[in-house]
Amino acid sequence: LRTGVGIDVHAYDETAPLWLGGLYWTDEPGLAGHSDGDAVLHAICDALLSAAGLGDLGSRFGTNDPRFAGAASEVFVRETLALVSGAGFAVVNVVVQVVAVRPKIAPRRSELEARLSALVGAPVTIGATTTDGLGFTGRGEGIAAIATALLSASA
Amino acid sequence: LRTGVGIDVHAYDETAPLWLGGLYWTDEPGLAGHSDGDAVLHAICDALLSAAGLGDLGSRFGTNDPRFAGAASEVFVRETLALVSGAGFAVVNVVVQVVAVRPKIAPRRSELEARLSALVGAPVTIGATTTDGLGFTGRGEGIAAIATALLSASA
Amino acid sequence: LRTGVGIDVHAYDETAPLWLGGLYWTDEPGLAGHSDGDAVLHAICDALLSAAGLGDLGSRFGTNDPRFAGAASEVFVRETLALVSGAGFAVVNVVVQVVAVRPKIAPRRSELEARLSALVGAPVTIGATTTDGLGFTGRGEGIAAIATALLSASA
Ligand SMILES: [Mg+2]
Ligand SMILES: [Mg+2]
Ligand SMILES: [Mg+2]
Repeated sequence: LRTGVGIDVHAYDETAPLWLGGLYWTDEPGLAGHSDGDAVLHAICDALLSAAGLGDLGSRFGTNDPRFAGAASEVFVRETLALVSGAGFAVVNVVVQVVAVRPKIAPRRSELEARLSALVGAPVTIGATTTDGLGFTGRGEGIAAIATALLSASA
Repeated sequence: LRTGVGIDVHAYDETAPLWLGGLYWTDEPGLAGHSDGDAVLHAICDALLSAAGLGDLGSRFGTNDPRFAGAASEVFVRETLALVSGAGFAVVNVVVQVVAVRPKIAPRRSELEARLSALVGAPVTIGATTTDGLGFTGRGEGIAAIATALLSASA
Repeated sequence: LRTGVGIDVHAYDETAPLWLGGLYWTDEPGLAGHSDGDAVLHAICDALLSAAGLGDLGSRFGTNDPRFAGAASEVFVRETLALVSGAGFAVVNVVVQVVAVRPKIAPRRSELEARLSALVGAPVTIGATTTDGLGFTGRGEGIAAIATALLSASA
């Protein structure tokens, strides 16, 4: 067994579309970033990579690499899973908590969890909270996501 | 087995009594919130709910629900544990770290850990740190708590 | 099995040498603190102590204790491991994520992971991310580190 953790933060960019958890969100401010800024998927990748001893998202999928400019972050998750599997691990489960005032996660939780669990091939759950007006998430400057992952040795 | 994580943040409210970790703290600033603002118990609930795939505290115990106005947050923990058990999981252990300048956790750690472990029916430990004057916790604007939980399939 | 979590934050101190992850970093701003301010090692200690139910770094190695003024934080890790072992636990693995603009972790990841894994006697991995200019880490005021640990009952 292995524990893993990942945190990611992106600032809102009102001019960008919002991709979060691999879903497109209409009428919500987007996120800045070299890729699509999907903090949920990035935190999941870092939780998986850390648990498997495979480095981190920034080094694996260089934030300056022109191949990943504007990339849909699901490609990072797919590649991460291939690396994790190649290193001899299977995913037991992954959880993510979004810390942000927007978007509201609850109305789309089932859709998010179904999509992410199918993508990862193991239970992925997603929750959300706010910070009572405090800090950069409280001021509505950006989104933070934290994920933990549990891996087992694959059979 | 399942990993879970929960974070919660509440701003100080000097006019409120302080409830934290299910205990009443005299001569300490309280916490704002729809309920009693007990960030420790809220983080524990979200760690347990996320691990079990049961959503999050905000959706389970609506922050606008008049039934929970001023609620003692232990009711959320008890209800969370019933849901977790009903979903077929047992709690292996829970840990919480408080990030705040006040109150000081160490003098009451034993009392907190005994009470929370009895409440949860598994080892619950609590630690604390500060942020060296940085951010909203460093400026003494509020309290953050982070919890991780480990669940197993119940027999 | 036991899960554990630890977070630590230290402000930069341009006049101090930088010790992070037990390594000395040339030409980088140092960290303030009663000890050497090694946020990576402190987060690891708190993850291990919380999992084992042994309190936290601040209470174990008092931040006002003159014996630890300027201490190299590896002594805290060694002492923590002795306590964890004495409590009947073995370390399964530990992961740390650094949240900071400086220093860059990736160029020294292999060195850090080799040293920390040897120190802990179990796999320790280290990753890093930034916060897109947001919050105290984004403004370059300090470093945050978060660690999770997994322990098992020792044979
Ligand atoms: Mg990112
Ligand atoms: Mg709360
Ligand atoms: Mg420290």
